[in-house]
Amino acid sequence: MIKAVIFDLDNTLVDFMNMKRRAIEGAIPAMCDAGLNLTPAEASKIIDEIYDEKGMEYQKVFDLFLQRVLKKIDYKILSAGIVAYRRAREAALTPYPHVYSTLNKLLKMGLKMGILSDAPTKEAWLRLAYLNFHHIVDAVVTSEDTGKIKPAPEPFMAILKKLDVTPEESLMVGDWAERDIVGAKNVGMRTAFAKYGDTFDTQQHYADYELNDISELISIIEKENA
Amino acid sequence: MIKAVIFDLDNTLVDFMNMKRRAIEGAIPAMCDAGLNLTPAEASKIIDEIYDEKGMEYQKVFDLFLQRVLKKIDYKILSAGIVAYRRAREAALTPYPHVYSTLNKLLKMGLKMGILSDAPTKEAWLRLAYLNFHHIVDAVVTSEDTGKIKPAPEPFMAILKKLDVTPEESLMVGDWAERDIVGAKNVGMRTAFAKYGDTFDTQQHYADYELNDISELISIIEKENA
Repeated sequence: MIKAVIFDLDNTLVDFMNMKRRAIEGAIPAMCDAGLNLTPAEASKIIDEIYDEKGMEYQKVFDLFLQRVLKKIDYKILSAGIVAYRRAREAALTPYPHVYSTLNKLLKMGLKMGILSDAPTKEAWLRLAYLNFHHIVDAVVTSEDTGKIKPAPEPFMAILKKLDVTPEESLMVGDWAERDIVGAKNVGMRTAFAKYGDTFDTQQHYADYELNDISELISIIEKENA
Repeated sequence: MIKAVIFDLDNTLVDFMNMKRRAIEGAIPAMCDAGLNLTPAEASKIIDEIYDEKGMEYQKVFDLFLQRVLKKIDYKILSAGIVAYRRAREAALTPYPHVYSTLNKLLKMGLKMGILSDAPTKEAWLRLAYLNFHHIVDAVVTSEDTGKIKPAPEPFMAILKKLDVTPEESLMVGDWAERDIVGAKNVGMRTAFAKYGDTFDTQQHYADYELNDISELISIIEKENA
């Protein structure tokens, strides 16, 4: 009997990579417009390198970008980039198709819902609040809550405890096979691989289910609980 | 002959206090909605106290607010507050009436324009970029550029140098008599007091001109340059 569904956040509920890409694609022309003397393609390449080095959650990417390109911070260019980034991100931060309707159907079915994310606590919560998910889910666990990231058992056990369910009563949904699926299976949860979030379509997984659209969860749970 | 107009930013071009007030008024109900167990009036009072203590540019106001009220950060409430604050600020960050049209008329008249602000460099520039002023003005000086704030002569001399004009060729426009007007007069600039930005209507000033609307600058400069 499935009583709780636990979702990874980025690339499972929200298309994080697309959001980032569109935010950066908004920022680059604004920086060129403010006086940056690079082509958009050149700027894009250097910004990608910085994200590769520092991780996708790095919050000072344009500062470092300008340091590398100009050997100093030009505040006119920096501020133009940040403002355009924020506006494009706000516009691009939307859930995958059928996320809202699926979560609402799960609510009606009486299921508990949790978020299990390895993103930094504040960034994860800000994305949840932008999307209004903070009203829908019953519990959230981020890496800072346990000091461990998936596939370690600690984060999985923490969210199960918060939701007051056993591993057998819960289904983990995630796009990262080696973290979400492996970690969930190791503690005894049911698993669904969010194939629609697997951008490069390169992952092997051993999940119980594979989702091409998040709405497929409804019939999976109906079948499990029949 | 006036060749340059130098503007203070906050409460001269943009109604900073109104922007802050509306952003906070957006954040408080969102925090109550996310589980904060205070009335909006109680929350508002504590937030005002924090701004009084830490200054209006303090960037961690909701973190400190929750520490004081709950003795911890509740990320659901924090993120709801930050997201609502950002959205309300974006909506409220608009220039005073006739700012855009006046700046464009000054451009057509061949005048140079500068911004002289005591705000932190990054916050000042972000506001300029949000408003698209970064394309209009020729130079910006913030307190971090000289390490001094108005009425010290250094910031005034720095913006005059950037604009390549003498004090006698320039007009300072600001809402803070003891800083903007006194400082500008001390270095020999002409002065206009932005009375429309003097929220509490309590300041005495000895400026050459008093503005009830920024558009009055046009006839002042036409007269000066006749």
